Amino acid sequence: MTGIQMSDEVAITAQSDQLYLDDLHVGQRFTTGTYRLDEAQIKSFGLQFDPQPFHTDEHAAERTFFKGLAASGWHTAAITMRLNVESGPPLAGGFVGAGGEVSWPAPARPGDVLHVESEVVEVTPSRSRPERGTIVLLSRTINQRGDVVLVQKAKLVVLRKVAA
Amino acid sequence: MTGIQMSDEVAITAQSDQLYLDDLHVGQRFTTGTYRLDEAQIKSFGLQFDPQPFHTDEHAAERTFFKGLAASGWHTAAITMRLNVESGPPLAGGFVGAGGEVSWPAPARPGDVLHVESEVVEVTPSRSRPERGTIVLLSRTINQRGDVVLVQKAKLVVLRKVAA
Repeated sequence: MTGIQMSDEVAITAQSDQLYLDDLHVGQRFTTGTYRLDEAQIKSFGLQFDPQPFHTDEHAAERTFFKGLAASGWHTAAITMRLNVESGPPLAGGFVGAGGEVSWPAPARPGDVLHVESEVVEVTPSRSRPERGTIVLLSRTINQRGDVVLVQKAKLVVLRKVAA
Repeated sequence: MTGIQMSDEVAITAQSDQLYLDDLHVGQRFTTGTYRLDEAQIKSFGLQFDPQPFHTDEHAAERTFFKGLAASGWHTAAITMRLNVESGPPLAGGFVGAGGEVSWPAPARPGDVLHVESEVVEVTPSRSRPERGTIVLLSRTINQRGDVVLVQKAKLVVLRKVAA
């Protein structure tokens, strides 16, 4: 975050690897590192935020819609965020979401190794605020078998170089 | 929950405490209990899933877009899920989301006391699977000052009575 308050934007980008709105274009793609999901994580998140048997109890989960323990969709979304923040596009100002669409084509399961593939699908400078704009980033979170466990179309606020 | 039910539905709710697709209709409204968000929770979620200064460090957060510590939007979404699961509509089969839209009109802050108000906006029996259908539930997560911190339009899978 301190990068955006420094004066020499070239040095900042080189130093911090940050991408400003001006650096982004439709069709640009990014792939993150991986995150290994296990049973303990699924249950812990489930107990805290989504206390339903298919997220908290592997035996009870067998008799549900999911036919086994599955991660809460919000857990998968949170892991997607972590992957994007840590190894996705290094957006200037950080990952600040205004909103978007999310869907879960398949559940994430214990043992899944997840990564995120994303693509810039819109770049829109703000009309009223010259120092920022928005992008729409389409992300797919994918497990080791190639199953897509989350699809997200996120509208993100990104700084322009004039802000640096 | 029971206050808004029609008379024949009250009996079902009383018996099983569950609402089947057949019990739901457009315009039906629900209000959850409350959840108090504090600084430690915001930082803990941030460190785990959204490690950015505006979610993890109140001093660094002052110099960011958020001008102070704010909950990760996924944290707010996870809390919304917990409130809906624990004291929202008692859907037969649980809260199983297929996807939807989410936006964060304002950040959730330390000390916020959140609740969720929701409304059924679509009820659709499945054409191919007589034992289930989907609803679209529009939820707003609101703090103690009336600020809306999350709006969500969620497509949920709900069992029909024939499945019981």
